Amino acid sequence: MRYGYIGSMKVKPGHRAEVVAALVAGADGLRRAGCDLYVVSESATDEDTVWVSEVWESREHHDASLQLPEVKASIGRVMPLLTGEFTRQETHVAGGLGL
Amino acid sequence: MRYGYIGSMKVKPGHRAEVVAALVAGADGLRRAGCDLYVVSESATDEDTVWVSEVWESREHHDASLQLPEVKASIGRVMPLLTGEFTRQETHVAGGLGL
Repeated sequence: MRYGYIGSMKVKPGHRAEVVAALVAGADGLRRAGCDLYVVSESATDEDTVWVSEVWESREHHDASLQLPEVKASIGRVMPLLTGEFTRQETHVAGGLGL
Repeated sequence: MRYGYIGSMKVKPGHRAEVVAALVAGADGLRRAGCDLYVVSESATDEDTVWVSEVWESREHHDASLQLPEVKASIGRVMPLLTGEFTRQETHVAGGLGL
């Protein structure tokens, strides 16, 4: 099964739009790293929370992507805008619609 | 922005594969109800937890889908296999890869 990742991050007040824009801008480049899905969402109930839902060919593809120069650069831009509070769920993707 | 839903459900021990299969089987039919994405995953760390990650044209499309006969039938099949423990996050979908 493909590797799934569902995570949330808290942004410093007033910076959510900037974080969301940076994550969306970086998503297309992940395809060649083995990413099939990278959905960026804003919490409907907490104005400082961003959710990502990801599907990768494998966990190894996901982990390797963190070493790509463009991904490291994106992390470097976003991290100063975050509070450091994260949630993280790793999954095995069974299937569904739109994959 | 499109409506997003990230949820988890606990299954009664030994029933996860059955629940996952039922959810995956029902996913294709959701497209005509305004669903763009319906990813069904198994937790990598808890053998009794199933995750769903959904994107809909709008919250109204999502809510209306719960009244469709095939969705009601699917819920009726799955609910007896669940413990009743759910988590639920509603989001506004900003974009990303694979949508």
